[in-house]
Amino acid sequence: MVTDTVQAAPQGRIAQVMAVINGRIAARSLVAGARLPSVRALARSAGVSVSTVVEAYNRLVAEGTIVSRPGSGFYVAPQLAPMQLRAVGPQLDRAIDPLWVSRQSLEADDGVPKPGCGWLPAAWLAEQSLRKALRSVSRAGVDALAGYGAPLGLPPLRQLLSRRLGERGVEVSPDQLMLTESGTQAIDLLCRFLLEPGDTVLVDDPCYFNFQALLRAHRVRVVSVPYTPNGPDIEAFATTLAAEKPRLYITNSAIHNPTGATLSPAVAHRVLKLADQHGLTIIEDDIFADFEPTPAPRLAGFDGLERVIQIGSFSKTLSASVRCGFIAVRPDWLEPLIDLKIATMFGGARLNEELVHAVLSDGRFHRHTEAVRLRLERARSEVGDRLRELGITPWLEPRAGMFLWCTLPDGRDSAELARAALAHGMVLAPGNAFSAAQTAGGFMRFNVAQMDEGSFAALRRALRAVAEREVGEPAAPQRPLAPLGRGLG
Amino acid sequence: MVTDTVQAAPQGRIAQVMAVINGRIAARSLVAGARLPSVRALARSAGVSVSTVVEAYNRLVAEGTIVSRPGSGFYVAPQLAPMQLRAVGPQLDRAIDPLWVSRQSLEADDGVPKPGCGWLPAAWLAEQSLRKALRSVSRAGVDALAGYGAPLGLPPLRQLLSRRLGERGVEVSPDQLMLTESGTQAIDLLCRFLLEPGDTVLVDDPCYFNFQALLRAHRVRVVSVPYTPNGPDIEAFATTLAAEKPRLYITNSAIHNPTGATLSPAVAHRVLKLADQHGLTIIEDDIFADFEPTPAPRLAGFDGLERVIQIGSFSKTLSASVRCGFIAVRPDWLEPLIDLKIATMFGGARLNEELVHAVLSDGRFHRHTEAVRLRLERARSEVGDRLRELGITPWLEPRAGMFLWCTLPDGRDSAELARAALAHGMVLAPGNAFSAAQTAGGFMRFNVAQMDEGSFAALRRALRAVAEREVGEPAAPQRPLAPLGRGLG
Repeated sequence: MVTDTVQAAPQGRIAQVMAVINGRIAARSLVAGARLPSVRALARSAGVSVSTVVEAYNRLVAEGTIVSRPGSGFYVAPQLAPMQLRAVGPQLDRAIDPLWVSRQSLEADDGVPKPGCGWLPAAWLAEQSLRKALRSVSRAGVDALAGYGAPLGLPPLRQLLSRRLGERGVEVSPDQLMLTESGTQAIDLLCRFLLEPGDTVLVDDPCYFNFQALLRAHRVRVVSVPYTPNGPDIEAFATTLAAEKPRLYITNSAIHNPTGATLSPAVAHRVLKLADQHGLTIIEDDIFADFEPTPAPRLAGFDGLERVIQIGSFSKTLSASVRCGFIAVRPDWLEPLIDLKIATMFGGARLNEELVHAVLSDGRFHRHTEAVRLRLERARSEVGDRLRELGITPWLEPRAGMFLWCTLPDGRDSAELARAALAHGMVLAPGNAFSAAQTAGGFMRFNVAQMDEGSFAALRRALRAVAEREVGEPAAPQRPLAPLGRGLG
Repeated sequence: MVTDTVQAAPQGRIAQVMAVINGRIAARSLVAGARLPSVRALARSAGVSVSTVVEAYNRLVAEGTIVSRPGSGFYVAPQLAPMQLRAVGPQLDRAIDPLWVSRQSLEADDGVPKPGCGWLPAAWLAEQSLRKALRSVSRAGVDALAGYGAPLGLPPLRQLLSRRLGERGVEVSPDQLMLTESGTQAIDLLCRFLLEPGDTVLVDDPCYFNFQALLRAHRVRVVSVPYTPNGPDIEAFATTLAAEKPRLYITNSAIHNPTGATLSPAVAHRVLKLADQHGLTIIEDDIFADFEPTPAPRLAGFDGLERVIQIGSFSKTLSASVRCGFIAVRPDWLEPLIDLKIATMFGGARLNEELVHAVLSDGRFHRHTEAVRLRLERARSEVGDRLRELGITPWLEPRAGMFLWCTLPDGRDSAELARAALAHGMVLAPGNAFSAAQTAGGFMRFNVAQMDEGSFAALRRALRAVAEREVGEPAAPQRPLAPLGRGLG
């Protein structure tokens, strides 16, 4: 929540009152034309003098942000400033702001290790198949090179995907598959389709941090349930469905981000049963599927795409530069989704679809994903051992994937460690960036594929800096390790 | 508007009352939890008996669409069906539904002429440069092939774009340019940034039809002003800004879609002056820029990107398969736009950006666009002559581009002609698909690059069918040619 209490040096109080009002306007808790709190009420709640509020309101009037209607009060001006995503939802510390963690990783130079990011180094991806696919597409027909793509996407790629999903237990015909420009864009399109502003959406605690940023853009309320090593805590899940009536649940099943946990068949069954009872729709984000040695249960497979929609992409094992994702959905929802896709994107990303199809059809790609799995298995084991030497302990041993979700030595706060690491030029992914309920302050997500000698050196320096600061500033209370719900075992 | 009056055979009345309620719910004029009209009130307004409404409400309760609260009335169920874009806004005839016209063109087979579409045949685009670019990128570094793109987009492409925009009179630094996945997606991102549900947005009458579909997805109200051969009718523009207080105006300047008109410097000046007075933001969609022989005035150039945002793409001359667009915007709006881009799309379309950069850097591309301009000039002249022979008259002679905006012989209705053409397998673009105010029923947009012998044959057959139907059904009143406002001269 936006903190409304103003505690500052006198000279800064007017500015702080202005910031509070501007924050509420940016966050749309005060909409265009809305009446502002009375001068007296705001002075009381903010703990400042009436004259401070009067002066702040006068300056906001001068700026054009609010208008004064004599005898009636102050109102938000009819023309609002554009949407500031950072101002929507909780005002987070930079080190744990999901948008900021994503952005720093995306903007970092190629080749710099990024232990906080959610992807493999480019050199781990399908380089040789991609080069071959580019040469092959350079000889394709002119329509493939320059024409608009069909709204559903390239038919042979949808056929191939239908077979691949079948192997993972998700029976889906090519006509139930729509290609998108990325996994994120697939979820975004579905949120537009399924949600109204003000709806409630359920996520896992912890969950992939961009879910929260995306949901902010849709102006919905986010609630969460603790995630256990077998899936969402089913008791909390039942209670939350009953109490909060979420319209949608967004989750990863096969390899959960950030914990690396795997949904068990029993939990999957109970999640779907509760979803049926409460009319809940589920988006299952399956972008890590290629990392699995054997398929874990999929909600979409159990459910037969009745109330579960599965999305995926190729950015984790094939290429993050060739943008392409997909949506597997019940047939009667495809038509309105096609309309929304045309309205918001127009044609499909045909060239990317041709390239993805060429790579997936290349026999090398299967061998490539097997090699990546083995390489990740080794990296999880080695990086896990070295982290333990530093007192950093994985919450569980994931069966696949690139993430280790770890507690820190001496119950340290991961935001503090992330801040210290940043001073050494390294972006980490502290637990609360993944936690809508802010209960994961004691956790840090490490990407094992991005941990090289330099990362470990920077991590050691950051741990030392945090420890020294603690000794040097004994007044700072040591925060207890925040519980991760019942899942923390 | 959804027609609420029920006029049908008795056995269908219950179903029609249900359809009216379902339509209002789909269009969100009845939101989740909203109270339905009383049985008596609806019976009166719909002209049906009370028992018909009671039965319709009971069936809707059985379906779970609405709930009954005894002693209080009927309410929309708390869980709504997903958004149906077609149900938002006016219920249009299929032949003039913007979404349907787009979709038919996108789904038509490669190589089939599509006189209703807004793009050139793929064979007219930058085929040789594209093949060369694909071969060249196949030898690029692995990060270009497989790594995530930076949120703002590929730096050398932004530098090149900055120079190109400068040549068109739009001074913009590379750091003010953000690359997107397409021109449509650029406008969509900006709408998310600038608009709130319920805002009012101004478009031209007529305007590019996908603006209307896109704006429906943003749940805003659309108003329009007539477009003249020199830009929007400035008197109507002034009146509408004062009366409707739109927050945003979306337009094409250089080559207006669908009319082919060109904004004059005087009108540009007056539009910007009025925008200043009313605090209006403008999105200038400049996707047809490559077709211009010499640059026409740009609102973004006059304004210096103060309140104008320019967007563009490469789909019209380079490739529609390689998706890439851009946004040129004032510097202080970039940061929140980057956040929104990450939240809704995550990484940039790096490979596409590499390909576009390679093509634009190829000396052949300049010669290619010159050749396309000449080819379009010849096609406009030839197709214009042949259309005139059929009594189809261009509203003006565009100085560039692929469109001829024409009136039909004997003041015929273009939706009727589009319906007849559809029966012959040809999708046309009738005037009212472009007209939010539905004032362009007498116009048809022809894409001169898509008019081959087969198209003319189908057009002649369709004209004949419409003429014969009129003779055969003298009772059908001939609709007068709807005026295109003052612009029609």
